Amino acid sequence: MAKLIDGRVIAENVYVELRREIAELKSKGIAPGLAVVLVGDNPASRTYVRSKDKMCRALGLHSVKLELPVSTTQDELLARVQRLNRDPSIHGILVQSPAPKHIDEEAIVRALDPGKDVDGFHRENVAKLVIGDASGFVPCTPLGIQRLLIETKIDIDGAHVVIVGRSMIVGKPLALLLMQKNKNANATVTVVHSRSRDLEKITRSADILVAAIGQATFVKGAHVRDGATVIDVGINRLEDPASERGYRLVGDVAFDEVARKAAAITPVPGGVGPMTIAMLMSNTVKAARQSLPRSGALPATS
Amino acid sequence: MAKLIDGRVIAENVYVELRREIAELKSKGIAPGLAVVLVGDNPASRTYVRSKDKMCRALGLHSVKLELPVSTTQDELLARVQRLNRDPSIHGILVQSPAPKHIDEEAIVRALDPGKDVDGFHRENVAKLVIGDASGFVPCTPLGIQRLLIETKIDIDGAHVVIVGRSMIVGKPLALLLMQKNKNANATVTVVHSRSRDLEKITRSADILVAAIGQATFVKGAHVRDGATVIDVGINRLEDPASERGYRLVGDVAFDEVARKAAAITPVPGGVGPMTIAMLMSNTVKAARQSLPRSGALPATS
Repeated sequence: MAKLIDGRVIAENVYVELRREIAELKSKGIAPGLAVVLVGDNPASRTYVRSKDKMCRALGLHSVKLELPVSTTQDELLARVQRLNRDPSIHGILVQSPAPKHIDEEAIVRALDPGKDVDGFHRENVAKLVIGDASGFVPCTPLGIQRLLIETKIDIDGAHVVIVGRSMIVGKPLALLLMQKNKNANATVTVVHSRSRDLEKITRSADILVAAIGQATFVKGAHVRDGATVIDVGINRLEDPASERGYRLVGDVAFDEVARKAAAITPVPGGVGPMTIAMLMSNTVKAARQSLPRSGALPATS
Repeated sequence: MAKLIDGRVIAENVYVELRREIAELKSKGIAPGLAVVLVGDNPASRTYVRSKDKMCRALGLHSVKLELPVSTTQDELLARVQRLNRDPSIHGILVQSPAPKHIDEEAIVRALDPGKDVDGFHRENVAKLVIGDASGFVPCTPLGIQRLLIETKIDIDGAHVVIVGRSMIVGKPLALLLMQKNKNANATVTVVHSRSRDLEKITRSADILVAAIGQATFVKGAHVRDGATVIDVGINRLEDPASERGYRLVGDVAFDEVARKAAAITPVPGGVGPMTIAMLMSNTVKAARQSLPRSGALPATS
């Protein structure tokens, strides 16, 4: 049976570090601040935004939660973003996706100050990831996956990582992150997707297999070689009348049969999910740190 | 014996198309213009710059060749680039690499108007490639490789492409280009490099193998499965007293032994090389076309 990679425990370790760093920044007169903007009343989005706000408060981060009505126009939203760009108490800005249909999300992301784009979706940060410029922000889910692997002491250097799915949020940035000429990277990376031939054969060659295709239990035992590490990014709702809520959450991996072959595996929930929010907090602290003058200290402390 | 993929012949076909498009643009009052800037007197760079200039003239493109002394400062070079950015007769700008050591090439690239960055190295264009925004410029060598495959009717969709090398000029942009959800793409892409374990095993699983690692004859017969397509990006000088020049050009592929196994292979020279310059011309024409008002016609013609 595979070892369970517990994202909640690893996220807690990240928070211990972050608390230390937040205290240090506060001693220099900076309280890292995150603004989360939600347009409309999508219930899932409300839940996400609330849990981000709660986590900020638990860590002692300055948290601003802007809940705007669904009638908010593109121009009004742009004006809000620009105000947050100029606000020195805010170091990270996140506009919760999906926005209502009349909002051009790409244009909103482009309007963000790249130095406050803690989601890592601004073109400036996308390019920095390709180039390998460490001052940029890497999207939270790929960053969380890398951290899970590091903390679990799974060797990435030289390993064959096969990523199922080529999204802008997970597949592509994770591929770019793990192929970097860098410690905790240097992987051989393959990206497979809906159009790939011989998908099973390729996933079976993975030392580390990442499922991020958004289809419940897509990855079966036959996709996985004995002893592989399996990271499950999917969060899918399956109807389940036996459950209290009427549904249960399953990943992109058929957990039971894959766990019998893998050496290590993340559960859903409790695997990648907690790491994604931990990395959002980490990126906000990084943004605050990078807002300090170049010397690394505030003028007042010199 | 493998079929030879003749880059010279395919480049000629590209030029036939480009001549037609250039004539059409001229009929609308636009002569596409390329400026190539060379700092210093590196002999290889001089040769490249001259051949680009010659190709422009052969196609009827407006060509500006700026040869600046090695003493040119960063600020002087930036001022030149900014003048070219503003020059309406120039649609593409290329600063020949490598520049002398006192020049910060990255800063020069950032100063380019992204709409004139026909090399595709500006961050704006790097990000567009990741996002899949077709208005951007893709670096010439990856673009030329894709075109070689298309013209040779080698199926990219669903195929396993293994790229040896992860450079910013070839490996990474080619991976991003061929994994796009797009016709002439949709490949399963693997990037291997100096740190990869089991490199031979992985390259042997390739339907299409691209060698871009910059080491003479690195890819041997043992790296290639029977019937694969092999694209050789390398151009390495090997000493050869028997040759008139004292050297001969070899690729990253051990041509003779690989040609015995591959179904199709590019020679060096005469494979990828001619396509790279053809794609530079193509990107310049695209830049000129995109400089037209949105309607696709000049106001004067309405």
